[in-house]
Amino acid sequence: MSEAFEQERETETARVVFMPSGRRGDFPLGTNLLEAARELGVDLDSVCGGRAVCGRCQVLLSVGEFAKLQISSVAENLTEPGETEERYKRIKGLKDGRRLGCQAQLRGDVVVDVPVESQIHRQVVRKSADEIRNLEIDPVTKLYYVELPKPSMEDQRSDLDRIAAQLESEWGVAGLSWSLPFLAGLSPSLRAGEVYGGEFKATVAVREECEAVAIWPGFKERIYGIAIDVGTTTVAGHLCALDSGEVLASAGLMNPQIRFGEDLMSRISYLQQNEDSAPELTAAVRDALAELVRELCRQSEIAAEDILELTLVGNPTMHHLVLGIDPTQLGVEPFPLVLDVGLSVPARDLGLPVNEGGTAFFLPCIAGHVGADTAGVILAQAPHASEEMTLVIDVGTNAEIVLGHRDRLIACSSPTGPAFEGAQITCGQRAAPGAIERVRIDRETLKPRFRVIGVELWSDEPGFEEAIGEAGVTGICGSGIIEAVAELYLSGIVAPSGRMQAKGREVEGHPNFIPKGRNFEYILHQSGDRVIRVTPSDIRAIQLAKSACYSGTRLLMDRMGTSHVDRVYLAGAFGSHIDVGYAMAIGLIPDCDLAKVASAGNAAGTGARIALLSRAARQEIDRVARTVEKVETAIAADFQEYFVAAINLPHASDPFPKLEAWLDEQGLARR
Amino acid sequence: MSEAFEQERETETARVVFMPSGRRGDFPLGTNLLEAARELGVDLDSVCGGRAVCGRCQVLLSVGEFAKLQISSVAENLTEPGETEERYKRIKGLKDGRRLGCQAQLRGDVVVDVPVESQIHRQVVRKSADEIRNLEIDPVTKLYYVELPKPSMEDQRSDLDRIAAQLESEWGVAGLSWSLPFLAGLSPSLRAGEVYGGEFKATVAVREECEAVAIWPGFKERIYGIAIDVGTTTVAGHLCALDSGEVLASAGLMNPQIRFGEDLMSRISYLQQNEDSAPELTAAVRDALAELVRELCRQSEIAAEDILELTLVGNPTMHHLVLGIDPTQLGVEPFPLVLDVGLSVPARDLGLPVNEGGTAFFLPCIAGHVGADTAGVILAQAPHASEEMTLVIDVGTNAEIVLGHRDRLIACSSPTGPAFEGAQITCGQRAAPGAIERVRIDRETLKPRFRVIGVELWSDEPGFEEAIGEAGVTGICGSGIIEAVAELYLSGIVAPSGRMQAKGREVEGHPNFIPKGRNFEYILHQSGDRVIRVTPSDIRAIQLAKSACYSGTRLLMDRMGTSHVDRVYLAGAFGSHIDVGYAMAIGLIPDCDLAKVASAGNAAGTGARIALLSRAARQEIDRVARTVEKVETAIAADFQEYFVAAINLPHASDPFPKLEAWLDEQGLARR
Repeated sequence: MSEAFEQERETETARVVFMPSGRRGDFPLGTNLLEAARELGVDLDSVCGGRAVCGRCQVLLSVGEFAKLQISSVAENLTEPGETEERYKRIKGLKDGRRLGCQAQLRGDVVVDVPVESQIHRQVVRKSADEIRNLEIDPVTKLYYVELPKPSMEDQRSDLDRIAAQLESEWGVAGLSWSLPFLAGLSPSLRAGEVYGGEFKATVAVREECEAVAIWPGFKERIYGIAIDVGTTTVAGHLCALDSGEVLASAGLMNPQIRFGEDLMSRISYLQQNEDSAPELTAAVRDALAELVRELCRQSEIAAEDILELTLVGNPTMHHLVLGIDPTQLGVEPFPLVLDVGLSVPARDLGLPVNEGGTAFFLPCIAGHVGADTAGVILAQAPHASEEMTLVIDVGTNAEIVLGHRDRLIACSSPTGPAFEGAQITCGQRAAPGAIERVRIDRETLKPRFRVIGVELWSDEPGFEEAIGEAGVTGICGSGIIEAVAELYLSGIVAPSGRMQAKGREVEGHPNFIPKGRNFEYILHQSGDRVIRVTPSDIRAIQLAKSACYSGTRLLMDRMGTSHVDRVYLAGAFGSHIDVGYAMAIGLIPDCDLAKVASAGNAAGTGARIALLSRAARQEIDRVARTVEKVETAIAADFQEYFVAAINLPHASDPFPKLEAWLDEQGLARR
Repeated sequence: MSEAFEQERETETARVVFMPSGRRGDFPLGTNLLEAARELGVDLDSVCGGRAVCGRCQVLLSVGEFAKLQISSVAENLTEPGETEERYKRIKGLKDGRRLGCQAQLRGDVVVDVPVESQIHRQVVRKSADEIRNLEIDPVTKLYYVELPKPSMEDQRSDLDRIAAQLESEWGVAGLSWSLPFLAGLSPSLRAGEVYGGEFKATVAVREECEAVAIWPGFKERIYGIAIDVGTTTVAGHLCALDSGEVLASAGLMNPQIRFGEDLMSRISYLQQNEDSAPELTAAVRDALAELVRELCRQSEIAAEDILELTLVGNPTMHHLVLGIDPTQLGVEPFPLVLDVGLSVPARDLGLPVNEGGTAFFLPCIAGHVGADTAGVILAQAPHASEEMTLVIDVGTNAEIVLGHRDRLIACSSPTGPAFEGAQITCGQRAAPGAIERVRIDRETLKPRFRVIGVELWSDEPGFEEAIGEAGVTGICGSGIIEAVAELYLSGIVAPSGRMQAKGREVEGHPNFIPKGRNFEYILHQSGDRVIRVTPSDIRAIQLAKSACYSGTRLLMDRMGTSHVDRVYLAGAFGSHIDVGYAMAIGLIPDCDLAKVASAGNAAGTGARIALLSRAARQEIDRVARTVEKVETAIAADFQEYFVAAINLPHASDPFPKLEAWLDEQGLARR
């Protein structure tokens, strides 16, 4: 080729425009689309380094006349698929019109579309309460595929030297440290990879761009992570693909620590009374976590070695115990945490059966009674990113309450007791099939109708008896008892003070009322000997629980210097079943536009999933958690005052105008 | 106090001069000596932060007139010992004239002496071959004593928060990460420390100024480390105080891998023939290391939890196996290492029974046959710091040879075989009591005299028979066979070719000669049936071994482009027993001024101890190891030529003028 002609060729360029970003540039003919994308900073993925192995760089040619761009984009302006691309298509498949960006070269001007699944920084868009908020996926551990020259007498560099050099030159990943599991896998992975051809081929997992943690022979498509919510009663987890966020399995099981005490305080008492018993509780919960991991692997058919990341949320006691830290001091004034910062530890040190190089990240705790679960809730609902005065309540045996907006967050924990979970309620039970979850009381006849979990029909609809079957109605769950109390109040059976009253009407002889001393019990359902009813003590328990919730909120509003909230999220298992209107009707939350009150599902678990998928989110929550101001209800003098004032339904002193309007709207007006 | 008077006092200063540094400055009266030392950058230790707890800041007042300094240094110019200092003296003792720097305050000009043991950067001065070279002690893990305000309802910060704040404000240690063992120990250590007074008091071990790895209640004086040499045959360790370098216990035991093969190649063969057997060999050697650690703890009465650092050296196969890395590829051309860099791993991941937060540092490997043991030798002998052309030979079953100076180092491994260790020698044995270690042959009578290990007398001195006792003379060790061969050669019994010859003299009937075909065996000692003798095959074995050594050296000299060496170190168990003159007399090392040939003792182990005590040394060896050029004897064409040429005694072609001069000087002239 003459030098003049060479020069001529070099100056011949073509224009490429990438959509949807619109980034464009001119490149020499023969440039492949992946190279062009990289040069332009277009978000086009590639794991194999342009070797037609991973298929992540797929693009779509937009055929047509683009007048504004002055481009006529036709198929001929890209080279035809060669042998390599055809081979990929044959083995792994390629949708019609799709091309491998690393193979298709420019022959003329083109407009090229980058589909969502070919973008590195994929967006997750939230569709429902239990899904994670809009998020750019950016996992902490990423895969890098490399091909290396084999050693020879002329090139005796160590395996590590050659893979380090390739990671640096091809991927710009340098200055790594090397974990023991990676080093143990290095030689066998490279040599198992020899079957792939004349060079060593392997995929390396690198954590936080600073440590090589695992290695596999050849090209490795995908690795996984597990987000775990360690509850006092249950531990639950989601297994997700780290590159897409897709949930491939979900499972839960009982926390076996239950044999050391039903609730948190009884477990801390156990610890106080039995010296050096913390390791026993740690072993119990770690065993459960290991079983959970195995169950998730079974369900999803994902190999344990393919799991590289875990994130954990939990209340401070669970958080400390999983880490092997004695939490006894959390039960003794002044209740200081042992640690609060977000923490990464080797998963193998927790006995978790995942990849030997796997890491577990614990979300930060916030205060002695406000744990990593609350950090998860904050990450999921992001009050710190909102301009609205946002109230988030995670309802359980304690209510963790967070209030604020982008400039300031404050938090506290309030002792609601277990009433909202159906415990210590006469006919209470956990939310499970057979439990009453919805209640309506006719304002005239004072007769109830209801729905139970697992049955679509209301109790007064035809076919209900058949649908419920032999198991029958078994009890009332948390949301059922809230609605029952609210309806008893709205229908005038129960006074604002919580006392059963007939309001002058004749209840004597009414089949749903049983006199009890100077008071009544109210029957929701009767079948044979089984009587599902609401008693005065049940109403009292709900009043105490909602009062604790409300007074905690009120205390935070005071500290914040605000008399209103713009938005309310109710999180937790209970929070996801409750009808938010009834929550307000009993005064659990302050007056608020009901359209802006929503259930947030298991927000703590959702927060764990967000942290699993995004390095930025981990930094975000670690930063935000440090800024949350803590309010200690136990020593706040006004907390007691608020508590007493909030015992009434919905509240003794605070006005609830928005609630009244909503009740009118819904035809639920009080009698 | 009036403001004017206050001002007056503030301007009143005194001068303090610290010796031996001579640093000086003027300080307000009342300044204590520790404060003054810190301000002046004087190397004065303190672990307790000036609380009269640790006693590390002891100083000595130099009383007298210092004319040049214009200072009259008298006892009255320091405040008298107060209650705190007296209490320290009562409990822990204080030598006469010594003061606690943190307590003694300036009342006038003083000259103050900082004794060696009060310096942070203590120097270790080498006194003998087996001691470490001059070194500034600067361990990787250091102790920090802190006192913390206890939590209260007004200050509910987490334990971690408060200790982090104190470490930063008092010691300037910030941005730490927190190991799981540290976190598990945090709360109990702080609370156990409460007995010490009204505040939390604890000592934290911080590694590389970046990670808190352990914590103890109250003031912790000292932590320890172990330097380990993992040999093919034995594993040996020294337990040292990390702050002084003092060796508190030394122990060794057999490497139990011996059941998988006597030497390296047979173990690699075992690995090649038994798939997935590497974990078995790893478990065996790790068990031995754990036992070694326990033995060192027993001997020194140091608790396992007080051991925070370990350093390890060993040949590449041992290095890889301890790390859990299959070394099979080291036995197959092109012999690439899996990894070469210096590596820190959690000691618990190796199953070593030390503090849970302890770390093991592996010195870097250099090439497939030049391991971390050679890195240790380099660190101990520091050829890279010398201007002289330095030759270091670590003699074992292979000889690892390093040649060079500050600008360039090259290295190779040469297969000497086990002859130097007394193996494959007719009457050979390990260096142990009863073994002949020194040999002289009378040039006229051709009769031998010798010394055995454990007896001070020569065999021809009165009382030798009684001294040797019933056990008798048991064999010849490595240095003994070298001297025997050298003396046979020097006395003319053996020709340069290695053939036994009588040089025309009558040996027929000579009691020390036994005819063997056309050759002879030479008897060193006879007692009953036991005949300790040197055979022609023994001489051949030594010739092959020394030739391997010499030709490896010659190859390196060629590559270096030098025809001479300025200095020679012989390292290894064998190297520390050998008389260097005889090593040269048989041509094991090139011609060199004998005054500059020395034994270096177990230099690999010494290197491990240096790395144990000095962070800078670890960085140094990691850097130097990367620069060492590797020469592969197996494919160097000239190696074979050199090998053949070096078979003769001392050498077929190279001149040995310095050797000749030395022989004359010693009266060892050849016949």
